[in-house]
Amino acid sequence: MKLEKCITVDNINQNLLNVKYAVRGPILERALQIERELVKGVPKPFKYVVRANIGDCHALGQKPITFIRQVLALAACPQLMSSPDVPEDVKKRVQNILDDCTKSSVGSYSPSAGLTLVRKHAAAYLTARDGVPASYEDIYLGSGASDLIKAVLTMFVKDADGKPPAVMIPIPQYPLFSGTLSELGLRQANYYLDEEHNWALQVSELERSWQQASVDSHVRALVIINPGNPTGQVLTQENIEEIIKFAYDHDLFLMADEVYQENIISKPFHSFKKVMHEMGPPYSGMELASFVTCSKGWAAECGLRAGWAELVRLQRDVAAAFSTARAVLQCPTVLGQCAVDCTVKPPSPGEASYPQFCAERRDIHRVLAERAATAYNTFNSIPGYSCNPIDGSMFAFPRVEIPENAQRAALEQGISPDEFYCLRLLEETGVCVVPGSGFGQKPGTFHFRTTILHSREEFQHMMDSIRHFHLQFLRQYS
Amino acid sequence: MKLEKCITVDNINQNLLNVKYAVRGPILERALQIERELVKGVPKPFKYVVRANIGDCHALGQKPITFIRQVLALAACPQLMSSPDVPEDVKKRVQNILDDCTKSSVGSYSPSAGLTLVRKHAAAYLTARDGVPASYEDIYLGSGASDLIKAVLTMFVKDADGKPPAVMIPIPQYPLFSGTLSELGLRQANYYLDEEHNWALQVSELERSWQQASVDSHVRALVIINPGNPTGQVLTQENIEEIIKFAYDHDLFLMADEVYQENIISKPFHSFKKVMHEMGPPYSGMELASFVTCSKGWAAECGLRAGWAELVRLQRDVAAAFSTARAVLQCPTVLGQCAVDCTVKPPSPGEASYPQFCAERRDIHRVLAERAATAYNTFNSIPGYSCNPIDGSMFAFPRVEIPENAQRAALEQGISPDEFYCLRLLEETGVCVVPGSGFGQKPGTFHFRTTILHSREEFQHMMDSIRHFHLQFLRQYS
Repeated sequence: MKLEKCITVDNINQNLLNVKYAVRGPILERALQIERELVKGVPKPFKYVVRANIGDCHALGQKPITFIRQVLALAACPQLMSSPDVPEDVKKRVQNILDDCTKSSVGSYSPSAGLTLVRKHAAAYLTARDGVPASYEDIYLGSGASDLIKAVLTMFVKDADGKPPAVMIPIPQYPLFSGTLSELGLRQANYYLDEEHNWALQVSELERSWQQASVDSHVRALVIINPGNPTGQVLTQENIEEIIKFAYDHDLFLMADEVYQENIISKPFHSFKKVMHEMGPPYSGMELASFVTCSKGWAAECGLRAGWAELVRLQRDVAAAFSTARAVLQCPTVLGQCAVDCTVKPPSPGEASYPQFCAERRDIHRVLAERAATAYNTFNSIPGYSCNPIDGSMFAFPRVEIPENAQRAALEQGISPDEFYCLRLLEETGVCVVPGSGFGQKPGTFHFRTTILHSREEFQHMMDSIRHFHLQFLRQYS
Repeated sequence: MKLEKCITVDNINQNLLNVKYAVRGPILERALQIERELVKGVPKPFKYVVRANIGDCHALGQKPITFIRQVLALAACPQLMSSPDVPEDVKKRVQNILDDCTKSSVGSYSPSAGLTLVRKHAAAYLTARDGVPASYEDIYLGSGASDLIKAVLTMFVKDADGKPPAVMIPIPQYPLFSGTLSELGLRQANYYLDEEHNWALQVSELERSWQQASVDSHVRALVIINPGNPTGQVLTQENIEEIIKFAYDHDLFLMADEVYQENIISKPFHSFKKVMHEMGPPYSGMELASFVTCSKGWAAECGLRAGWAELVRLQRDVAAAFSTARAVLQCPTVLGQCAVDCTVKPPSPGEASYPQFCAERRDIHRVLAERAATAYNTFNSIPGYSCNPIDGSMFAFPRVEIPENAQRAALEQGISPDEFYCLRLLEETGVCVVPGSGFGQKPGTFHFRTTILHSREEFQHMMDSIRHFHLQFLRQYS
């Protein structure tokens, strides 16, 4: 019999059917629909949709850093080098980058791992950050950190023989991890962060998770997200030491998602690289993948798709296989690489761009700290809400008590109570946040993730809308 | 026993060890080494390395299109909108694109499939190209066409049950295909192009290949590269019709790599989409993936990583699964998307940029035609060489007779005769081309691929070097 279609839900790669990505999931779909309805004049109890579903910094109101944008413009169009509107240090920076591009064009392919100049600057940045020498040969640029995280996870895929491989990830987690594990057919071994202790990472829980997964899986890697996404905690040095020891004892490859390392609010950031080094042997000899990005921090250039990773102490042949697989897709975007160069080597004192750069960066950090405080205070003042301090990242992940009547109503609609809550919030206030189930949460608890980078007015409007909605919701369902 | 490393060649995803990518393989490694030796003053029988290994247009000397670069610059840095050096139509174009970016920033994420504006322009481009309506919802932007080809191939990955899936690809092929099939663990079913008939695609050979592969595989898809890479042929309408019928009869998903459709030298390009449409039912109802890029053609912006695909008539749930998997990696670079906008909607008559754009594009086409003629004439004048006409693409893929003594010498070194030949060519002349074995070739035949976009002087130097080298090589080994 002739097939209707060559690819059907029955014969497509079944892993793809398991991929979920709540950040761009049904809630966002509905939000976009509502935006279209508003344009058409459909009456709503609100004037506009507040998108708080995704850490899309510029979309939320964070301003691009002028220095980065000037570098990008001149790198793309060196004819504009004569422009009097662009400072000399920008022109010098662009010239240095173009000197490393074949025939001085950002339209030429770069080496697969990235321009050598940019990799060297990234290594210098890490060396300064950690006080530990870094080698540019360990630096790999990518189309966002996500691209590199997927590439590293791909190394753990295995044939059918033997125990299926698993990767430990935190719950709550950023769904890039669950989504990518699903696509690659890798098992997900959950370890729960301790909400009662500011989302602390307890080694006893790592041990429990590992034991449970090891019954029928081979646990290969341990993912740590620090600062936490969606949870906003920042790990202490002592905690990182415990985690490293745990990984060492269980032969786990450490994947440190450190993309929010420049979004620090109230606690110092310690890199896994530095802590490993300070612990000395055998820990200082362990493999490590650390992920960094231009999409977050003060650069916040999500749309450029520019991230990078440091992969240290890989077996030589493993590094070669990793590099060859990357080479098949040629190289990451060269304009994105220019942005990496700006973030790892920002303007320095004495350069013409320095004062403006400092002012812009200071402003970004100030806004982040203010919003984090507002979110923390507001959420903890709403009955039935609780929210841990936001020490880093750009998210709040408050816990919400959902009345049993509302839970039943959700069940009747075939959705989870937190989805029900977030959909109602969207329909009644226009505020678009992501249900906790999209990140994972302890059974019986309910949360949502909201970004906190909005302008003060918009953020206050959002906080007020949530409070008002929740009180009404309680009245309706209690 | 404590493992030395968490990831080793024994426990890494074994598929990764099978990935080969000759275009950036050992020959390039050696070429880069030689370049460093030249800098150090190591004496060589040549002054510089001629890189002809990769279709890296700007690196070879093709000039960027001014219009594209001006659009990129202003999109990155709208402050420069007031620059008197940039024509009004560029400013208007940029404003339209920024209006479609959230908060007018290219630093905001776009929808996963790309900016709606750009997708609509791409659909309009296809509609005009084929005289067949295209829908923007079928357009997916990516980080180069390679990214999208990999994403489509991922749909064919399958669990261990049943016959393993296979994909038919031409031989010679572009090693993105073999490399990606290896990584994904998909079987490669080779069909040979008919070198004796200008690299024609014979349906009898498709049939043979399908029959052979079907013994122990489930052949899911058929890849066509048109214009051919590395082979440079352009398929006739009749041939495309036969191929479509073949795919229909065997329930094969058609993947048309049409990235060289703007690199047309002497024969008209027919898209699979248009031919399918003209054939009418049932063929006009078939699924199809067609791949397009900004990296080739007159734009030639390899470094931007901007490609796109049209996926038509996918089952609704299949399209949804494809989209969700794409969403996990957020979106392709927005600056790359700006370049897509420029290529699918170039300046039109009456716009200020139009005359310069036309002049630049004309020049690019002229160079391509001249080099193709030079390559064809030169290669066919060298004893032991033969080269089919180059009707499209930017490559020549001459066949070279390698004396038996040289074949034996290669065998002694444990490399293939064509690798031996290309390495000797590199060492003696500095010319870096890619051995035919990197693309696949009929057993017992030897080829190499060279790009043809160099400046006239450099290209003539390369042709002369190859001729001189070959005659010496023949004297040495005959």
